[in-house]
Amino acid sequence: MTRLFNDPSDFPDEARLGLVAAHRDKLMAVPGGVVRSTRSEPGTVAVVIGGGSGHYPTFAGLVGQGLAHGAVMGNLFCSPSAQQVYSVAKAANNGGGVLLTFGNYAGDVLHFGEARERLVAEGIPCEIVTITDDVASAPLNEIDKRRGIAGDLTVFKATAAAAEEGNSLAEVVVVAREANHRTRSFGVAFDGCTLPGASDALFHVPEGKMAIGLGIHGEPGISEADVPSANGLAEMLVARLLDELPEGVTLAGARVVPILNGLGTVKYEELFVVYRRVDELLREAGVRIVEPDVGELVTSLDMAGVSLTLLWLDDEMERLWTAPADAPGYRKGSVRPAEAIDASEVEVVVQGEIPEASQASRELADGVVAALEALAVTVDENAEMLGRIDAVAGDGDHGIGMQRGSKACLEAARQAQSDGAGAETVLRFAGERWADKAGGTSGAIWRVILTSIGEALGDEHPLVAERLAAGVSAASDNVMSFGKAKPGDKTLVDVLVPFSESLSASVASGEGVVAAWKKASERAGEAAEATAELLPKVGRARPLAEKSLGTVDAGATSLALITRCLIPVLKRCG
Amino acid sequence: MTRLFNDPSDFPDEARLGLVAAHRDKLMAVPGGVVRSTRSEPGTVAVVIGGGSGHYPTFAGLVGQGLAHGAVMGNLFCSPSAQQVYSVAKAANNGGGVLLTFGNYAGDVLHFGEARERLVAEGIPCEIVTITDDVASAPLNEIDKRRGIAGDLTVFKATAAAAEEGNSLAEVVVVAREANHRTRSFGVAFDGCTLPGASDALFHVPEGKMAIGLGIHGEPGISEADVPSANGLAEMLVARLLDELPEGVTLAGARVVPILNGLGTVKYEELFVVYRRVDELLREAGVRIVEPDVGELVTSLDMAGVSLTLLWLDDEMERLWTAPADAPGYRKGSVRPAEAIDASEVEVVVQGEIPEASQASRELADGVVAALEALAVTVDENAEMLGRIDAVAGDGDHGIGMQRGSKACLEAARQAQSDGAGAETVLRFAGERWADKAGGTSGAIWRVILTSIGEALGDEHPLVAERLAAGVSAASDNVMSFGKAKPGDKTLVDVLVPFSESLSASVASGEGVVAAWKKASERAGEAAEATAELLPKVGRARPLAEKSLGTVDAGATSLALITRCLIPVLKRCG
Repeated sequence: MTRLFNDPSDFPDEARLGLVAAHRDKLMAVPGGVVRSTRSEPGTVAVVIGGGSGHYPTFAGLVGQGLAHGAVMGNLFCSPSAQQVYSVAKAANNGGGVLLTFGNYAGDVLHFGEARERLVAEGIPCEIVTITDDVASAPLNEIDKRRGIAGDLTVFKATAAAAEEGNSLAEVVVVAREANHRTRSFGVAFDGCTLPGASDALFHVPEGKMAIGLGIHGEPGISEADVPSANGLAEMLVARLLDELPEGVTLAGARVVPILNGLGTVKYEELFVVYRRVDELLREAGVRIVEPDVGELVTSLDMAGVSLTLLWLDDEMERLWTAPADAPGYRKGSVRPAEAIDASEVEVVVQGEIPEASQASRELADGVVAALEALAVTVDENAEMLGRIDAVAGDGDHGIGMQRGSKACLEAARQAQSDGAGAETVLRFAGERWADKAGGTSGAIWRVILTSIGEALGDEHPLVAERLAAGVSAASDNVMSFGKAKPGDKTLVDVLVPFSESLSASVASGEGVVAAWKKASERAGEAAEATAELLPKVGRARPLAEKSLGTVDAGATSLALITRCLIPVLKRCG
Repeated sequence: MTRLFNDPSDFPDEARLGLVAAHRDKLMAVPGGVVRSTRSEPGTVAVVIGGGSGHYPTFAGLVGQGLAHGAVMGNLFCSPSAQQVYSVAKAANNGGGVLLTFGNYAGDVLHFGEARERLVAEGIPCEIVTITDDVASAPLNEIDKRRGIAGDLTVFKATAAAAEEGNSLAEVVVVAREANHRTRSFGVAFDGCTLPGASDALFHVPEGKMAIGLGIHGEPGISEADVPSANGLAEMLVARLLDELPEGVTLAGARVVPILNGLGTVKYEELFVVYRRVDELLREAGVRIVEPDVGELVTSLDMAGVSLTLLWLDDEMERLWTAPADAPGYRKGSVRPAEAIDASEVEVVVQGEIPEASQASRELADGVVAALEALAVTVDENAEMLGRIDAVAGDGDHGIGMQRGSKACLEAARQAQSDGAGAETVLRFAGERWADKAGGTSGAIWRVILTSIGEALGDEHPLVAERLAAGVSAASDNVMSFGKAKPGDKTLVDVLVPFSESLSASVASGEGVVAAWKKASERAGEAAEATAELLPKVGRARPLAEKSLGTVDAGATSLALITRCLIPVLKRCG
């Protein structure tokens, strides 16, 4: 149960500010997250970590000397927006380039990827390493599809220590990949967590049972078993991880860092009782244990669960793991004192200027605002239904996320419109705000859709059918490129692609905007229904790695609804 | 819910061993608890802390450089025995004397006090400072009756830093008292904690309510209110503590260390949301904040609760608070590396030898064993009833504790008897084992009773009425001296004193052992009934500081029952 909050929607931001207030010697708040308040060696690679909030000390509690330079903090369990990632990366940059590293979730991959493109376009070298330690989330032959759980810590620690040693960005990337390769985790959950303001947990596990293969965002696991004794649990966790040694590691004489992680309400005493047996089992297997950790390191609010992570060491990895660190939520050894920096020395990203626009594009911008109004109304009317669809395979928050995003996006569009922006700029600002406020995968995708269409419309032209069709086509390509989803993966792409193809074909054959859009929208509706029919078959048995894309399935329905509601607006504009 | 355990009775010990396994660089297990595994400066005062288990990182997680030298660990929420305290103190001693410091609870006061007497008797200087930070547990004019909660941390930290600086025992005692004087705490609870193996929590707070003035052993608080917003809670906690500044502190320009402590299942994010407002309020009050702590520092298993502690600083206290520390559960700044010590260098206390005994005393020892058998049977038969009486004002575990203690005591007595011990030694070993296994206040008191009687009977004499009456009289005096309870405080003393007085008077007037004991036992029964009648009036409204003595009320009934059941045994012996 989460009981202590003010306005639930302020919870993650107030937690961030409280954390900074408690650790002013280490942290500074910047738009989108936190960065170190101590000076880093100029020219060192900045390690920027992040993801949704709700996992303290991960992510913001892992910023400090010897650990990360900055942490991007999304809403609870929601990916941060690209704008947030970009802002934190700019503030954390020490002139040595930026390494973005985070757990492998679709929304995070989208947003960090987009931020990386912006940084690189500005001449700031930037690389990405995603973390895939959870053996329960996909089989070994699809290891790249695995998600990141408590293994986040070992990758962050080794990567940051390599940066602290003064290695180049390319060298730090190699270390981060190697640390991820050498890290494996496996966990169980006894009960779900409760978001602030919610009256019940995201899921429950029956009394006396446990869910095997827990996630850290309320995902309920892949199978169920009776709760074993503490020793029995230790044996299960160790056996599963010894069964899958990373390539290149042999058990005899191996060195390993065990991390027994509590997800929230499992108590320290329980963790120590389990660890007692973990320690015995690893010793019996002939492994040498190096600086273990037992505690709450990657949590999931008040979820009841526990995971075991093993980092298999070589000489370099041992040196990096045992190097000193001094972050609010993780301290090891003795760091050299670092100078405090002044807030004025940190680069703070502010919202961009409004570029010049033609009268025609400013008039088109009025139509864009009308379209976003229609979109927001439609989303609002259908939010509950979208939530229900999403609850089949996802976490049921698609409706709420779309509501939050479309409402914020409309406000940004109206502001830009009244500041004299053209169609492209209105759509860009609207898309950025959507992603900023809604977070998650759908926020990222709608940002891509709106900005892609905006770029095609430009800030100089009236409404031109070919430009609109090209914009939708670019949106379709860009969503696939960002989201790594293909047609047939049962995502929003299954609707977007046929919609775009129909629109382009009609426009190419000389049809008017309204007729072409109407036909394409009917095609989208059919595709959405075909996708929705698959949902009941998918249900809970679906592999976990795909589950993080769950909201996109409901997204197929949203997209079809939205294309339809825009027909009257186009009629008025056209 | 506590879910991960093996045999519930092994839980505290397995947790201790798991903790040591995870922190071999800092900790070493010794009988009764843990000590540092690093070398301390010879001649420095050893700071030994302790109490019941279930409060991690307090107590064992606070052993390490810059913090405690040793921690004594009792059963869950039960005071450790004097033997355990003695053992840990001997192992932690660096030749500079020992400071024992712990929260002010009756059982701890008894056992640490008794251990201190043994250490002093052996020529090891030893002092005691109890912690009384909880403003809810007694009014200001009875500040010595207050119990210790999260303020344990500030007192331990300052005391240990003073020891680390090389101060003498007398100087360290002054610092410990001053730190306690400058520390105040206040807390609330939202739900109780569950012991391993128990099917429900020790108490529940109604949904949407909170108990004000929480304890850390499942005590449910002194009043109830609606759960406020996070800001509302911050305001309540800060207002209560600013309302009672320690003597000598003025608000204007004051420096303070705030500690916002989570009791178990309140999450870090919630604590930070509350702390955000605590920080604002203290700044608005014109106070300078120094190195705050927000986290789980003094827990109560999986209890849902939060407390705020304020340590008001002067220059010395600020220096001691900010000094480096490196314990498993608390790290600050950078300590100098310390050399590891070998287990063989640490003094380990083993059970004493059996002294010579006369044939007459060995025969009397057979009677003692028979008496302890009768006692164990009577306790067993009445355990449920004793638990029910205890549940009125205490935590309902008196019957279980007495069962555990009397059973273990009987085993120790039989072993000593078969090893040829006399009456005194049999009673001493029996009493020590009782306190060791049962813990808590009643364990301590029965140890005092049995050893006091044993000393009077000696290892050389047959049963002599005067010796028995003198032993009971000594037991009565020693229990009052240890427990600080007077006749009329509604404790076991209300039965013990009239029983002893009646026995002494009858023996002095020439009555035989059996007749004198029988008369005294009737007097004890009357006194117990008078005490029991008061219980329903006392109930939940009773002040908290007295509540920790709750088990002694049920103890009055036990004592009366036990005196009665011994009459047939005395008839056989006499």
